[in-house]
Amino acid sequence: MRSNGRPFSWWRSLSAVEAVRQAYDAIRAANDPAIFIALKDEEAALAEAAALDAAGPEGKPLFGLPFAVKDNIDVAGMPTTAACPDFAHDVETSAFTVARLEEAGAICIGKTNLDQFATGLVGVRSPYGVPKNALDPALIPGGSSSGSAVAVAIGAAAFSLGTDTAGSGRIPAGMNGIVGLKPSVGLLSATGMVPACRTLDTISVFAPTVADAAEATAVAQGYDAADFMSRTLPSAGVLPLPPHFTVGVPLPEQRQFFGDAKSQAAFEADLETLAGLGAIIREIDFEPLHAVARLLYEGPWVAERYHAIREIIETRPDVLHPVTRKIIGGADGITAVDTFDAIYKLQTLKRAVQPTLAGLDCLAAPTVPAVYTVAEVEADPVQLNSNLGTYTNFVNLLDLAAISVPVGTRADGLPSSLTLIGPAGSDARLAGYAAALEAGARPEAVPAAPEGSITLAVVGAHLSGMPLNHELTDRNAVFLRALTTTADYRLYALDGTVPPKPGLLRVEAGTGETIAIELWALSPEAFGTFVANIPAPLGIGTLALEDGSSAKGFLVEAEAVKTARDISSYGSWRAFIADGAS
Amino acid sequence: MRSNGRPFSWWRSLSAVEAVRQAYDAIRAANDPAIFIALKDEEAALAEAAALDAAGPEGKPLFGLPFAVKDNIDVAGMPTTAACPDFAHDVETSAFTVARLEEAGAICIGKTNLDQFATGLVGVRSPYGVPKNALDPALIPGGSSSGSAVAVAIGAAAFSLGTDTAGSGRIPAGMNGIVGLKPSVGLLSATGMVPACRTLDTISVFAPTVADAAEATAVAQGYDAADFMSRTLPSAGVLPLPPHFTVGVPLPEQRQFFGDAKSQAAFEADLETLAGLGAIIREIDFEPLHAVARLLYEGPWVAERYHAIREIIETRPDVLHPVTRKIIGGADGITAVDTFDAIYKLQTLKRAVQPTLAGLDCLAAPTVPAVYTVAEVEADPVQLNSNLGTYTNFVNLLDLAAISVPVGTRADGLPSSLTLIGPAGSDARLAGYAAALEAGARPEAVPAAPEGSITLAVVGAHLSGMPLNHELTDRNAVFLRALTTTADYRLYALDGTVPPKPGLLRVEAGTGETIAIELWALSPEAFGTFVANIPAPLGIGTLALEDGSSAKGFLVEAEAVKTARDISSYGSWRAFIADGAS
Repeated sequence: MRSNGRPFSWWRSLSAVEAVRQAYDAIRAANDPAIFIALKDEEAALAEAAALDAAGPEGKPLFGLPFAVKDNIDVAGMPTTAACPDFAHDVETSAFTVARLEEAGAICIGKTNLDQFATGLVGVRSPYGVPKNALDPALIPGGSSSGSAVAVAIGAAAFSLGTDTAGSGRIPAGMNGIVGLKPSVGLLSATGMVPACRTLDTISVFAPTVADAAEATAVAQGYDAADFMSRTLPSAGVLPLPPHFTVGVPLPEQRQFFGDAKSQAAFEADLETLAGLGAIIREIDFEPLHAVARLLYEGPWVAERYHAIREIIETRPDVLHPVTRKIIGGADGITAVDTFDAIYKLQTLKRAVQPTLAGLDCLAAPTVPAVYTVAEVEADPVQLNSNLGTYTNFVNLLDLAAISVPVGTRADGLPSSLTLIGPAGSDARLAGYAAALEAGARPEAVPAAPEGSITLAVVGAHLSGMPLNHELTDRNAVFLRALTTTADYRLYALDGTVPPKPGLLRVEAGTGETIAIELWALSPEAFGTFVANIPAPLGIGTLALEDGSSAKGFLVEAEAVKTARDISSYGSWRAFIADGAS
Repeated sequence: MRSNGRPFSWWRSLSAVEAVRQAYDAIRAANDPAIFIALKDEEAALAEAAALDAAGPEGKPLFGLPFAVKDNIDVAGMPTTAACPDFAHDVETSAFTVARLEEAGAICIGKTNLDQFATGLVGVRSPYGVPKNALDPALIPGGSSSGSAVAVAIGAAAFSLGTDTAGSGRIPAGMNGIVGLKPSVGLLSATGMVPACRTLDTISVFAPTVADAAEATAVAQGYDAADFMSRTLPSAGVLPLPPHFTVGVPLPEQRQFFGDAKSQAAFEADLETLAGLGAIIREIDFEPLHAVARLLYEGPWVAERYHAIREIIETRPDVLHPVTRKIIGGADGITAVDTFDAIYKLQTLKRAVQPTLAGLDCLAAPTVPAVYTVAEVEADPVQLNSNLGTYTNFVNLLDLAAISVPVGTRADGLPSSLTLIGPAGSDARLAGYAAALEAGARPEAVPAAPEGSITLAVVGAHLSGMPLNHELTDRNAVFLRALTTTADYRLYALDGTVPPKPGLLRVEAGTGETIAIELWALSPEAFGTFVANIPAPLGIGTLALEDGSSAKGFLVEAEAVKTARDISSYGSWRAFIADGAS
């Protein structure tokens, strides 16, 4: 059983107008008024799409992709309710993150339902009804980003925005068989989002595939000085899968499934899949992580939720969903001293888990420990909600990134999802692991630059097989690929160099040749020592490459080649050497 | 009027036994029972010293230096009181930081008086009396680290440890004419220190000279997994002074001296001294910093102090100093919601000041805005205490490092001190500025490049005081010296670069000029990331320098300067910019 989510590639085979039509058709077909709290007028969306089609896709990486936005994030022209009708207010400015997506050509089709004020992991705590789970209508959709997950899973949107404070961006992904990307806090601006816990919140992204979720996240990413949690982090995206990576999983006796044997069996099978992709599985003590999760529920962070809706809860508590009111009302009576006590406990736990996490590339855990029906949750709303957060709650408090991805199939045909969890900034690395899990296979070997490395273009004696290539391999440099420069360079054979070396010089546009180079990736330190050893008249500048990219690479001082032999017509140092001409 | 503090060089001219004798002689000469709460038995200290003398100084960088420890920091074998007799308890393990100093050969001679539980900046809030100010007994010693500052100032210790949460490591230094180094939080472990505000506290160091304070700090520095605030930061020490550095000072109308005209005049004169050392003085808006300081006094952080002494204040409040009890009792009634509200306000202010601080190498402010007598403070204990913190309170909340150094002399003969303030990790850079202030002159000695570093010649926007210099200092680059190239280069003003940049090109022998450059040393990794970020048409080659040496340095592609303005006749980018010609 798989969701009806459609990958970006499918949407991109359509015009923007056709894509929007497909989205609204899917909404009509689902016939579920609980998914969206506000839907954009179809004609207005089609008009936007037509304008996009007319302007063309240039400079718009998300051209024509319909997307949905959780209704605790502002979209200009639609009210924001946070699933509390009394909170509804008109909005004139889209959230920073929404604006970036729209600038990239994505088309917002509506605002989706949620557990009121993003408080809950179940998706049933809303006066706007319970969105039907896209796979089995008896099941909860998961929350709090219920509508956003379902919208993607029924094919009503190419991707959607949720939010995630304790798992709200992952649980609904797991429940609906799609991908839920919870970015590192600060990667996506929270300006224009109704806060839950401002120090823990992030906007999150749902999509049918890992690559799509990562792409939308990378487009939305950007530093926002107005959001005090915003920070500059490595780009989102999908990094290549290394041959091996180390994954921490709970000790067998710590795996909690609350009696759901199908979840348990599926998790064991999913770990097998993970191991088959090159993961080195390490069983670790999850108890400190569970201790962090308990802090979230028992500690003062609920006061952040109170702070966010202070005016309502102090003047009109009756307008709140009763469960929401009870939970957030729990902030009453928590003191500043309690707060610092919890902050100290959290910091102490952070330090305690640090050595464990430092030895791992990521953690893997079930996204949801057990699958619940709406009826079950309505009968026991707080405990089952708490159960659902077993493997999600600790993530935000520990400043981690995570991605939930469907992997295997449970005995009842439902998809089972794993969540991969890594340090802040590891988003693209996690997506790399997740993409392999999604494919169920290692990608065809295409080496890519290791994270944090610097790419160097070499043109002469450092080429593979040449006398100075060891200066790269001794520094653990990784060969990436061979290509050529743009046609803006000339190559000279330098006089009196031992071993013989060429010099590459940028010349006036239209007067050069394309020259063969090799790209190698080095760590910053290796790159530093390598550059420090380059003798005059050679140096390191920036080379323009045939594929439109640029890279640091060897250049020669113009003064040094005044009398040197121009060997540009060979097209490469290797061809010149092979010719026996040196 | 100067303190009787003796520099390390003086102590080092003595054997350990002689040094300890001198320390106890100075204590006897001062005849002030309020400096130390507990003094080590002199015979025991002499025995320790004799054992050290017998073993020799090898591997003991602080060999034979007597030091004093504020009595809110544990020293094995002496009780810790935090200036509250009822809190007194025996201690079997020295604080992490004390242990490191003792392992380095320093000899602890006793535990010093303080404002009870480090709450105060005055030095008069202790049941153990008021330590006499070392310069004028009518004046307050400053606090809370009153005894530690006085111990150094009377020559009873080569250095001492204080603590600093809001200025306790700086105000007493300023009041006694010695150096007070408030390290970046996390540089010195707080394990074994009685907390005031655990998220803001640091152990601090007093010494007669900048070099001594920096040396003791560097020895004490070390990551401690048991202290959740501990972190790995650049080494403390004294970095060489670059030719220029940019210093932010309060706008004239924002300079507060509370009627102390002598302080005001001395501050203006001290800024002149600073400018004479190469500082580029920039008047900036200090109001956001004052807003941060108000948060400390009006906000929930007092609850951290309450947390630290919860058992006492809830069961035996009468044993507290009345002022201390009143202040810390103020935590009562502050809620978790208030706490998060203040955290948000602080984060917002942090973001607001970030762009300002990013454009500066440091801030400079008076250490104390006004000098008060004991009688004045006793008459108005809370307001005058608050006045004293005007230029210290914001530092810890903003995660900054600081050093207070005596610079000039007030009209009444008292020394006046400046405090230099920079980002976390800038400790050694600040000490470099402070050492020049202390000397009243630029150092003559040419500093050596740190071992393993790579020397880089910069010629344009990366020169000290120029807009991109922070790309070096952010990487902990060390300024080495200024000199010129050989006469084989021409300098061009590149078109359309932001900020404006020049290009240096090697030309035919005899057709060039000598061009001013600065040499900076970087670690290989820092050099690697720096080079990786250099945009075309600039690159890194090898420059020939006037002294016959060569260094990696900026060069420009010849093709890029064909139409650029030749500014070689200026001899330096700095001269060209100063000419307003860009």
